[in-house]
Amino acid sequence: MSTEKETPLIAGLSMPQQKPDAAKLLQSAREDGYDYVITDLPLSQEARSDVIALTGRWWRTSIVGNVPEDPPEALLKNLTKYLEWAIHMGIPAVILPSPPKDMVFEYAQVLQSLAIDAQSSNTQLWIRTLLNEESLQRYELLTRLCDGQPNIATMLIMEPLKPTSSPAAATASQIIMLHKAIGAQLKAVCFPTSVFLTNKRGYPTLSKSHQVLFTEVLKRIGRTVRILIEGAPKHDIPGAGDGMGSTKCLPYLQYIRHIRQRPECVAALDTEEASLESGYLDSLQRPLQPLKDHLEFSMYETFEKDPVKYAKYQEACTMALSDGMASMKPDSASPKMITIAVAGAGRGPLVMRAIRAFKSLNADPTAVVLRVFALEKNPSAVVYLQSMAQNHADWKGIVTIVHTDARKLTLEHLGGRKIDIVVSELLGSFGDNELSPECLDPLLASECCKPSTISIPMQYTTFVAPVSSVRLHTDARQQAQVPHEGGQTLGLQRAMETSYVVRSHAASQTHPEQTCWNFQHPAKETGMERAVSLDFAPDATFAAAAGSGYGALDPAIAGIVSQVLPGSGGAVTLHGLLGSFTAVLYASKDHYSELSIAPHRFSEKMFSWFPIYFPFREPLHVPSGCSVGVKMWRKTADGRVWYEWCAKVHKNGTTIAVTPIHNPKGRSSDVSL
Amino acid sequence: MSTEKETPLIAGLSMPQQKPDAAKLLQSAREDGYDYVITDLPLSQEARSDVIALTGRWWRTSIVGNVPEDPPEALLKNLTKYLEWAIHMGIPAVILPSPPKDMVFEYAQVLQSLAIDAQSSNTQLWIRTLLNEESLQRYELLTRLCDGQPNIATMLIMEPLKPTSSPAAATASQIIMLHKAIGAQLKAVCFPTSVFLTNKRGYPTLSKSHQVLFTEVLKRIGRTVRILIEGAPKHDIPGAGDGMGSTKCLPYLQYIRHIRQRPECVAALDTEEASLESGYLDSLQRPLQPLKDHLEFSMYETFEKDPVKYAKYQEACTMALSDGMASMKPDSASPKMITIAVAGAGRGPLVMRAIRAFKSLNADPTAVVLRVFALEKNPSAVVYLQSMAQNHADWKGIVTIVHTDARKLTLEHLGGRKIDIVVSELLGSFGDNELSPECLDPLLASECCKPSTISIPMQYTTFVAPVSSVRLHTDARQQAQVPHEGGQTLGLQRAMETSYVVRSHAASQTHPEQTCWNFQHPAKETGMERAVSLDFAPDATFAAAAGSGYGALDPAIAGIVSQVLPGSGGAVTLHGLLGSFTAVLYASKDHYSELSIAPHRFSEKMFSWFPIYFPFREPLHVPSGCSVGVKMWRKTADGRVWYEWCAKVHKNGTTIAVTPIHNPKGRSSDVSL
Repeated sequence: MSTEKETPLIAGLSMPQQKPDAAKLLQSAREDGYDYVITDLPLSQEARSDVIALTGRWWRTSIVGNVPEDPPEALLKNLTKYLEWAIHMGIPAVILPSPPKDMVFEYAQVLQSLAIDAQSSNTQLWIRTLLNEESLQRYELLTRLCDGQPNIATMLIMEPLKPTSSPAAATASQIIMLHKAIGAQLKAVCFPTSVFLTNKRGYPTLSKSHQVLFTEVLKRIGRTVRILIEGAPKHDIPGAGDGMGSTKCLPYLQYIRHIRQRPECVAALDTEEASLESGYLDSLQRPLQPLKDHLEFSMYETFEKDPVKYAKYQEACTMALSDGMASMKPDSASPKMITIAVAGAGRGPLVMRAIRAFKSLNADPTAVVLRVFALEKNPSAVVYLQSMAQNHADWKGIVTIVHTDARKLTLEHLGGRKIDIVVSELLGSFGDNELSPECLDPLLASECCKPSTISIPMQYTTFVAPVSSVRLHTDARQQAQVPHEGGQTLGLQRAMETSYVVRSHAASQTHPEQTCWNFQHPAKETGMERAVSLDFAPDATFAAAAGSGYGALDPAIAGIVSQVLPGSGGAVTLHGLLGSFTAVLYASKDHYSELSIAPHRFSEKMFSWFPIYFPFREPLHVPSGCSVGVKMWRKTADGRVWYEWCAKVHKNGTTIAVTPIHNPKGRSSDVSL
Repeated sequence: MSTEKETPLIAGLSMPQQKPDAAKLLQSAREDGYDYVITDLPLSQEARSDVIALTGRWWRTSIVGNVPEDPPEALLKNLTKYLEWAIHMGIPAVILPSPPKDMVFEYAQVLQSLAIDAQSSNTQLWIRTLLNEESLQRYELLTRLCDGQPNIATMLIMEPLKPTSSPAAATASQIIMLHKAIGAQLKAVCFPTSVFLTNKRGYPTLSKSHQVLFTEVLKRIGRTVRILIEGAPKHDIPGAGDGMGSTKCLPYLQYIRHIRQRPECVAALDTEEASLESGYLDSLQRPLQPLKDHLEFSMYETFEKDPVKYAKYQEACTMALSDGMASMKPDSASPKMITIAVAGAGRGPLVMRAIRAFKSLNADPTAVVLRVFALEKNPSAVVYLQSMAQNHADWKGIVTIVHTDARKLTLEHLGGRKIDIVVSELLGSFGDNELSPECLDPLLASECCKPSTISIPMQYTTFVAPVSSVRLHTDARQQAQVPHEGGQTLGLQRAMETSYVVRSHAASQTHPEQTCWNFQHPAKETGMERAVSLDFAPDATFAAAAGSGYGALDPAIAGIVSQVLPGSGGAVTLHGLLGSFTAVLYASKDHYSELSIAPHRFSEKMFSWFPIYFPFREPLHVPSGCSVGVKMWRKTADGRVWYEWCAKVHKNGTTIAVTPIHNPKGRSSDVSL
C-alpha cells in the first residue's frame, strides 16, 4: 500500500486564550502539526490583532469560529452578531452551543435564518452535541425545524466516561448513538483534553471505549470528518514539543494519528478501492437506462475494472459448463457443441470470461467445442467486438458478433443453433431496475432458447432498508434545481420521486434490510409487476453493523451492539430507503455462485454497484419503540417500468405518520423499455 | 328575504336497476325534481342503451357513476376499468367503495393514479365513508397517501342509528365526526331510504339525531354539498308522485327540502351576506399591502359596504368625543376645538363617521367645535376627498385634506394644532398584518400628537387556531403554479410559506383559538417584533362550534358537543393555522367598543375581514390524545415585516412530529413598509 493514497486526517486545536488571537495560536499549532485552530468570535467591535496578522486565505481555510456558551437568552440575542463577523471573514465553520433545553424552537428560528445567510460564505454551522440520546434528539429536532439546511451539522463532544456496571453495554449504546449521529450530519469530533487518560509513561491515551468509538468514526467517515482537540494541555511531556512556541498539545495529535494508523482504519481508508470511490461519496446519480441509451466507451472500461464481478461470472460459467458437459451423452461421431449467448456484450468482458471458463475445464476438443454469440445493440460497441473477434486469438473461430437487441434475436442470427447458456450483466443496483427481466424473459422464451437453456444470472432478489441521512435528503432536494427539459428545472416533486444510485457514506442504515422481491430465469411467475409490504420492527441496534448501507456488515460492531437489547435504540429520523440486491449467477446440486451488495452478504471488494436511494419527500420521524411499514411497487405500462413507494410509522396498531405514495403512474421517474 | 338569492340544494337519486339505464332513471327522477342520478359503471364492453339515449351534456352534468362493492381483490383489479369508462364519458363524479380494511395502502396506490387520470375530465372521486371514527380515519389515511389529490373527496353514508343509552352523547360524537369530515373534503351526503323513519301519516322522516346532523351539514356546506337518496323506496305514499314514470321517491326529496327550509338553514344560506361572499368561499387571496400599494377605487367601495364596521367606528368616535368633552374645563372665552385625524382616509368613510359621531352628541357650538384632518397618501383617493371637502355640506369648513403618508405628518400640515383623536382602519385579517403598528406608532409619537392623544383602535389582539382543510391545503399547493416574477412560477416553497386571506368554508377549526399577541396605541411595549408559543390540548369537541373558523360560534353545536368529554375527539389531521383578530376601538371607564372576527367573539354581520390561512407544507397528523404546539414569530428587518411559523405534535413530553419553521427570513412572503 503506497502512502501516496493515504487520506489525511484533518485535526484542529482549541486552546483558552486571554485575548483571542488566532494568528498566534495558528502559528504554534501548525508547528505541532495541527491543521486549523479555533477562535472565539467577537461580540463587540473591539480591535483584534489577528485580523491584520492573518491574510484572508488563512481565515477561509484554517480558522474555525466559536460561539461562547452564553446563558440562553443572551445566546439567542447575540447569535446573529457572532455569525455576522464569521460570515464576513468567510470562516469555513462555526462551532455553536447545543440548543438550550427549553428553547429548541427559538434557537431553530434564529439558526435557520443564519444558516441561509451562511451559505453565501460556505460557512458550516457545527452544533455541539453530546453522545447521549437527549442531546442527539435535541440536535435532531433542531435540524428538522431548520428544514435540512445543508450547512447545519453536528460536532460530537466526547465526554469522560461515567462509571458503569456494564462497560460493554455502555459502549454498545454509544456505538448506536454514533450511528445515528452519522446519519444526522456528523462533521466533527471534539476531544477535550480532559477526556484523555495518562498511560504509564505519562502520555495521553484514550479509554478502551473511546478508542472503539473513535475507530468507528474513522472507519465510517474518516475521509470527511474533522477532529478537534480542545482545552489546556493536561499532559506535560518533557521534550515533546515543548519548544518556545509550542502549544504543548502535540502528544494528543500524536495519539490521534496513532489510532488513525490502526490496521482496521488503514483497511477502510487507504485502499485502492477507497481511493477510487472517494469522488462518488454521497454523490447522487440517476440510474442508467441501458435499454434506452447507449453506454459510452469509458463507462464500459470503468465497469470492467471490477476485480470480483467478472471472476464470479467466470466461476458461474465454469460451473454451468461443467454441469452441462457432465450431463452430455458421449457421442463419438462428432464433437458436441455448447452454445453461449452473451446478451448485451458491451466490449466483451463476459465473452472473454466464458471462453476462459471453457478453457479452464480442459475439455477434449474432439468431444466438445464452444460457440459464443455476442449480442449487442450499441453499434459503436459492435465495432470493438468485431475487432476482437477478428484479432484476438482466443476469440477467433469461436465468437460470432450479432448486432441486435437481445429481445429481437432470431434463430437465423444463430445459424439455427439454439442457445445452451445465456450470460448477461443487465443488473442494476436494485437488481431489476435496469430492466433485466424485460430483456431476458423474451429471449429465454424465444425460438432461440430451449426449456433447458440456463441463464446466468439465474435469479436476483432485491432488498430494501430504511436509511437516515440528512446528507442524501438535502442532496436529493437540491436536484430540484437541476436543469430538466425545455429550460425548466427538475422541480421538487420530480426530484423527490426519483431513485438515485449513490455510494452512501454520510448515512446510516437504521434496520436490517429485508427481501423486497425476486425475478427468476426462466420465469416461474408471470408478469413483470411486483408489490411488497414490509415491516421493520424497532431495532436500531443490529443495523449499526450495516453502517452506511454499503459494504459488508462489520462483525466487530455486530459483536459490540449485541450487548444491548434489540429495540432499545430510541427515536430515529428516516430520509428514505436504500435498495440493494443479491444475484444468484448459478446454482445446481453441486455448485453455487452469487454476487451481492446487500450488506448481510456483501461480495467483498466488488465495486460495480452502489446502493439505490429512494428519498422520502419529507423526513419521517420514528419515535422510540415504533415500527416502520414500507410498501413498494414495481409497475409497468406503455413501455415503461417504474417504482412507487411509501412508508408509515406505527405502534400498537395506531398509524402515527405516513408518507404519501411517491411517484404515482411513474409521473416523476421511470425506465424505458 | 327574496327567494332569488336562495341557494339551490342539489339532490340525486340512486335506485336499483335490473340493467343499468341512466336515461330511464334520469327521466323519471327529474320529473320528481331530482337533479342527477347514479348509474353502475360497466366492467365489460357490453352494450347499454343509455349511451345512445342521452347526449354527452347529460352525462357530463347529471349522471354520477357508481363502482360496485366487489370483494377487495376484485375491486383493486377492476377499479381502473370502471374509472376508464367514467373518464371517457366525462362523468362529473364517481362513487367508490370505502378502502378495504387491510388494503388501504394498496387501494391508495391504485386510487392516486386514477385521481391523476380523472383530473383531465374533472371527475371527482367520492369515497363512501361512514360516520364513525374507524371509517373516517381509514378515508383520511387514504387521502394522506394520495397526497391531497384535489379530486378525491368523501361521501358520508348515513346509517340507521344504533340503540344507545345516551342519545345526546351519541349525537355529540357524530357532530364531532361530521366536523372532521368537513375538513377532509366532504362533498356529498347519502341517505339510504332505509334510514328514514315513518311518521304518523306514513310519510318519511329522519330521526332527531339525523335531523341535527343534516341541518349542520346544510348550515356549514349547504352551498356546495350534494345530497343523494339511495335505494328502493320504502314509503308508498298514495298520490305522492306515483304517476306512471315516477320513481316513488318524491317524498324523500320533499322531506330533505323541508329541512333545507328551516330558519337556521335559511339564515345561513340565503342572506345577502351569504350571497355576497359565495364567490370567495375557499378562494385564497394574497393579503393586501396597503402601505406599499395604492388601493383601487372599487376596493374602497367594497369595503364601505360593511354594515357593522363603520357603525362600530361611529360608536367608538362618539364614545371618545363624549369622554373628551366631559373632561374639558369650561372656558367661556372661545369654543374649544377637538381635532380628529383620520389616518389613511381613503374615500372618507371614517371622516363621515367622525362627523356624524360629533353631531350625534349635539354639542353647544359655542363651547366646542370639530376639526377633521383626512390624511391620505394615495393621490387618486385625494381627488375624491378634496371633492367631498368642497362639496359635501357636512364636510365644509370642518375637514382638511392632507396629502401625506400618515407616518410623515408634521405639525405644519395641521396648522399647528395637535391631534386629540387618531382614527384609522389599517387592520388586516391578522390584526397587525397590514402594518398598522408600523404606521400608527410613528404618528402617535410625533410632534403632531400629545401623550393624551387617543387612537381608535386603541389596541388589537391576534388569535390563532389549528385548522383541518384538505381544500385549503391543496389550493395553497396549486399556488405554486401561479406566475411570479420573470416568467417563473411561484414554486412550492414560496406557495407554502405565504399566508392567504380566505373565506374558509370546506374547513374545520380543530381547537379553540388562542391569543397570539397584541399591539396597543400608544405603544406600551417597545419593538415591533413578537413571538408566541401556544399549546393546544387534545380537544376536538368544543372547536366544532367554531365551524370553518369564520363566523360566530354556533351555540346549538356548543350545547350538543358539551355532552362529551373534551379530549375525546380522536385523531385529526391539520393543514395549517387560521388567524383572526379582535380590535378594541375604544375603551374607557364607561365605554367599550370592539370589532372582532375571532369566532369566540365574532362581530355579527360584519364581512370586512376573512380569516388568514398559514399553510403547513405537509399535513400534520395528530393521533388521538396528542397535543399540538404552535410557535409564531412576527419579525421585522430592512423595511419588511414577516411571519414565521411551525407546529409540533407531542404527548407525555415526547415530540411525535414537527413541521419545519416556515418562511425563515421572510424568504417567501413579507409585507413592505
